[in-house]
Amino acid sequence: MSSLPTPSEQLQILRRGTDGIVPEEDLLKKLESSATTGRPLQVKLGLDPTAPDIHLGLAVVLRKLRQFQDLGHVATIIIGDFTAMIGDPSGKSLTRKQLSLDEVRDNARTYEEQYTKILDPAKTKVTFNSQWLGALSFHDVILLTAHVTVARVLERDDFANRLAQNRPLSLHELLYPISQAYDSVELRSDVELGGTDQRFNILMGRDLQREYGQEPQVALFTPLLVGLDGVQKMSKSLGNYVGVSEPAESQFAKLLSISDDLMPKYYELCTELPESMYAPLIAQLPMEAKKRLAVEVISYFHSPEAAQHARTEWERVHSQHQLPDEVPDVDVSRSQLQEGRIWVVSLVKALLSCGTNEARRHVQNKAVALEGAKVTEVDAQVELKGGEVLQVGRRHFGRIRLVD
Amino acid sequence: MSSLPTPSEQLQILRRGTDGIVPEEDLLKKLESSATTGRPLQVKLGLDPTAPDIHLGLAVVLRKLRQFQDLGHVATIIIGDFTAMIGDPSGKSLTRKQLSLDEVRDNARTYEEQYTKILDPAKTKVTFNSQWLGALSFHDVILLTAHVTVARVLERDDFANRLAQNRPLSLHELLYPISQAYDSVELRSDVELGGTDQRFNILMGRDLQREYGQEPQVALFTPLLVGLDGVQKMSKSLGNYVGVSEPAESQFAKLLSISDDLMPKYYELCTELPESMYAPLIAQLPMEAKKRLAVEVISYFHSPEAAQHARTEWERVHSQHQLPDEVPDVDVSRSQLQEGRIWVVSLVKALLSCGTNEARRHVQNKAVALEGAKVTEVDAQVELKGGEVLQVGRRHFGRIRLVD
Repeated sequence: MSSLPTPSEQLQILRRGTDGIVPEEDLLKKLESSATTGRPLQVKLGLDPTAPDIHLGLAVVLRKLRQFQDLGHVATIIIGDFTAMIGDPSGKSLTRKQLSLDEVRDNARTYEEQYTKILDPAKTKVTFNSQWLGALSFHDVILLTAHVTVARVLERDDFANRLAQNRPLSLHELLYPISQAYDSVELRSDVELGGTDQRFNILMGRDLQREYGQEPQVALFTPLLVGLDGVQKMSKSLGNYVGVSEPAESQFAKLLSISDDLMPKYYELCTELPESMYAPLIAQLPMEAKKRLAVEVISYFHSPEAAQHARTEWERVHSQHQLPDEVPDVDVSRSQLQEGRIWVVSLVKALLSCGTNEARRHVQNKAVALEGAKVTEVDAQVELKGGEVLQVGRRHFGRIRLVD
Repeated sequence: MSSLPTPSEQLQILRRGTDGIVPEEDLLKKLESSATTGRPLQVKLGLDPTAPDIHLGLAVVLRKLRQFQDLGHVATIIIGDFTAMIGDPSGKSLTRKQLSLDEVRDNARTYEEQYTKILDPAKTKVTFNSQWLGALSFHDVILLTAHVTVARVLERDDFANRLAQNRPLSLHELLYPISQAYDSVELRSDVELGGTDQRFNILMGRDLQREYGQEPQVALFTPLLVGLDGVQKMSKSLGNYVGVSEPAESQFAKLLSISDDLMPKYYELCTELPESMYAPLIAQLPMEAKKRLAVEVISYFHSPEAAQHARTEWERVHSQHQLPDEVPDVDVSRSQLQEGRIWVVSLVKALLSCGTNEARRHVQNKAVALEGAKVTEVDAQVELKGGEVLQVGRRHFGRIRLVD
């Protein structure tokens, strides 16, 4: 007897935090059939080999994949090395987009290092779609593309919009959805996961499997995580992301930078905590809620210890750097600058109105910071543009004002 | 010194009977450059391997190709064995359309037997586009299709119409124009000939050659010949065609069946005669004009002797079959019919009011015809529905009337 949850219980678990299961009743049927036959479901996730940094946004779907694994099913990650050749929206940088075999393998290795933080390596297959797509001839492509109508492909929003707005849409781009769909045929996948932006491509997989006489896969969509800026989806190219392999300290600082409004979504998609726990905390103690969110996330990707350490360190540095309500100006004559720089000891003397020796000692004692960065070399020439905050010890602050 | 016409004279000759040269000034430049360098122009004509019967409509463009040969240039016929796999409009009979290698070769042989009636075999290359298109991988197809936008392909009228009218248009069909265009790149063709229905595909060849850094080919369009019905373009599948390899007698009969209105177009496109010769003839002696048209066409594809013989034979048979202005009725009682048939001798007796022996003799002497078909067996039971014309000898006619 299996100790796994029943099919309905599995569905209950899998449904959490999704943005649609199409069709949900088919997922239940597949879970039931798997329970009866003992054959695990084949769960597909396609990843782009051009951006090997896994961030919190991608972790949302990977954690969903992990749930399938924990329920006894098999995950296959398809590295879209072949489809990546088609990927560029404008069609102009096609050549630039092409990766060498070595780059693709490097990226795949990088993925592997990262996804093992989330997935069960023993239940994860990684495969490249160049393996089958790269073997197709023009003749095969004709037979493949005969299975789908132009009208169907042009239903994809971005295609339709670009056509309607007379923005360039290259013919080769129409081959993307069907290539991606063919991966599902090749894999005979039962379920495909993806962000809501993959809706069209994943449903095309269903169509194509049906054309090839296979039982169509179930599409399970996960929501797109909004990036740290609170506006666009989290993505590496937009710089609004938290990488799962980033140091705990960096993750902590980034997560503390999000607006309060974003917290509920981040709790929902990046932690396992129930709403009944985080909602009151956010309402009553938003700063504490944000720190706990960061601790929760870091605990998952690193460890609870690393998370706690990141919090302590952040608080120490942050309180140390806290500026008093009023920071007095420190006048520095431009004539003292050489090529925009000044000796750090002269700066300290200006702030404290002390002698050279005392100023030197503060630097040697690592008590001096300019714009929050320690200056510990007594010979250091620091660059000034005016407006920088100079700090000596815990209590002495001054804002540089350049005067003639 | 070459004895060929000058480039401007060549252009003059080539322009006759065309339906557009795009762009005409480029053709002149190419002819001039060819005259200077001595390098003949590479002239392309694509043919479909699924319909190996060459008819008068196709002969129009083949004769234009022959003109290029006579002016010293090289003709390449591309048998679209690969593109034929894409060709079906509805995308449903894709499998049915696929020809075996043997069939393609058979068809090519059939073409060869026919086009030598028109082209100069020594200056004609025949090649199959499967030779290069069949060697392309999916990767190659992506690079190829990246050169053209979806908007550009959907400018093709039939594509645009089918999309607009929600009629099926399969994705693979969009690959046709670009595949055909790639033939021009492969061939580095200077000129491509085609019917006006090939306008889009041939111009796509120009675009693609430019993308591949080649000097774009000139498109030379020939008008579509209207079929014998005077309504639709001549095509084998519509049955309104005259095959170039048909027997002279059959060609003669078919050409005599066209309406008077069609004659000027047929003279223009199927003969070399100037309008000043045929226009007055048509106006004054339409029947004679039609016979001379047939003689002209048959002389080209067979020989002047064969043409004259066909004319004499047609006139002999035709005048023999000519009905008098009034044909008297011959009453036949339905009770004489057995399963709708009657003994031929009884029929003759009814017409001539003669005895059985005399009637038998007429049949034996091959003097009896029903609906123009000789009946020579004295035992023959002929089928009657009423209204048939019975003829005995040169002068006796009667129209059967069935009576109760």
